[in-house]
Amino acid sequence: MTNTSGLKTTGAERSPAPVVFFLSNSTGITAETLGNTLLTQFPGHRFERRTIPFITTAEEARRIVHTIDGLAATGPRPIVFSTAVNRDIRAILSQSKGHFVDLYDAHIAQLESALQATASGEAGKAHGVGDAIRYQSRMTAVEYAMEHDDGQSIRALSRAALILIAPSRCGKTPTAMYLALQHGILAANFPLIEEDFSRQSLPDPLLPHIHKCFGLTSLPVRLNQIRQERRPGTTYASLAQCSYELRNAEEMYRSNGVPYMNSASMSVEEISATILQRMQLSH
Amino acid sequence: MTNTSGLKTTGAERSPAPVVFFLSNSTGITAETLGNTLLTQFPGHRFERRTIPFITTAEEARRIVHTIDGLAATGPRPIVFSTAVNRDIRAILSQSKGHFVDLYDAHIAQLESALQATASGEAGKAHGVGDAIRYQSRMTAVEYAMEHDDGQSIRALSRAALILIAPSRCGKTPTAMYLALQHGILAANFPLIEEDFSRQSLPDPLLPHIHKCFGLTSLPVRLNQIRQERRPGTTYASLAQCSYELRNAEEMYRSNGVPYMNSASMSVEEISATILQRMQLSH
Repeated sequence: MTNTSGLKTTGAERSPAPVVFFLSNSTGITAETLGNTLLTQFPGHRFERRTIPFITTAEEARRIVHTIDGLAATGPRPIVFSTAVNRDIRAILSQSKGHFVDLYDAHIAQLESALQATASGEAGKAHGVGDAIRYQSRMTAVEYAMEHDDGQSIRALSRAALILIAPSRCGKTPTAMYLALQHGILAANFPLIEEDFSRQSLPDPLLPHIHKCFGLTSLPVRLNQIRQERRPGTTYASLAQCSYELRNAEEMYRSNGVPYMNSASMSVEEISATILQRMQLSH
Repeated sequence: MTNTSGLKTTGAERSPAPVVFFLSNSTGITAETLGNTLLTQFPGHRFERRTIPFITTAEEARRIVHTIDGLAATGPRPIVFSTAVNRDIRAILSQSKGHFVDLYDAHIAQLESALQATASGEAGKAHGVGDAIRYQSRMTAVEYAMEHDDGQSIRALSRAALILIAPSRCGKTPTAMYLALQHGILAANFPLIEEDFSRQSLPDPLLPHIHKCFGLTSLPVRLNQIRQERRPGTTYASLAQCSYELRNAEEMYRSNGVPYMNSASMSVEEISATILQRMQLSH
């Protein structure tokens, strides 16, 4: 794909997409996260991404340099994001003909100076089991979120740190799962349904836990679109029904003092960051 | 907590933990990810962490600088990881009395040069909805993983990109959820139970999909410990039963040519990165 050697074209949209490598002696998650964040600053550009995790030997590092140099010889110079910690491996990787962006080396000296301490130099443990108690709390939270998805169980709502409430398809489930998996938050989620709207009251099991509830709303057209994909042509998916449910849900949040927000154009990451901040949940 | 002004102590374990700020005009996830990765290089040190996402005005930035300066006046200088993109906001934040680690500015010039293009300068969109198709595939995958958790449904196993198999409590569910949420992988998971072991055969619904199966094993003592927490004193949790199931599962993986690994000391991030690589799943 990138082997269309020698072709010179003008305009980023015509040239072959440079290959972006994310290299790590651990999972590669950190390199991907910062690397991709930086690449979003160049929205007109296309990239072909390759993550190579668990680089632990000089031999592997040399093989990767060989691959990078091969690409550089026949197409655009690859961009190489690295979080490799090991000095020898970094030295090898930095010799490739790609643009080498060293996310580790660029910052570690500043931290050593700030902390008046020497970096351990041990391979990244940021995404290992690490702090066993914190890790276990995340796994427990995933299990809790599964069991308390969509109002399936009210057995342990008193253990919840957060109860997400909303009409169907406003993003409760993926948000609860994200908060559990990434932050170890015991997040239940509970649907608001027709019965609740006609009673004009929150579901009874939630009443003792209103202070832990957070509501989601959406835009009627957006909800309509999502529901149509799931159950096309049904009353459930109709624009009128979506408007009705969202209007009633919002009214219910307000009258019960439940904090809420419109999640229509937000990602689970954005919804989660906002909830953590507004509910002051420690993570 | 850090206001124990004036006290000079020796040894990192006695001094108040420096406050670490993760500042962002978006979710703060990138700043947290690289910041925490770098901090793991200083394992003897304690830190107090504060994430402040969605910093969008100069006034907010000034308020944060005020907080940082207050902490610096009475305790150890805070460490400030920033991914703020906006030039004015960066200029304000960089004036604080904390150690300012600019994760954006340190790398963007190198990328501008590599791509011969100018960074857009727009606030980070890395964890927004971004590429709507990719985002939707992640949400679809979460739904799929929920529906196909623990063999609950075999309705759409043919759509799966991956089927995780293992005895109970080896980490199938959180791994499937992680792969779905972070990478949009359609990951089902299916338990291996007594009946399968006595028949010495994989569950029938898996047989047409063996090429998509990946097996997990664990250490008997580790599995025993996890099961004891869940159902103390049962045969299910006994060391003998755990050994029996793990031995049989491994035998079954081998005889069916199903790739597998021991997940006993691995995090979901490490298990996932390994599976993506070994199963060559694009993400």
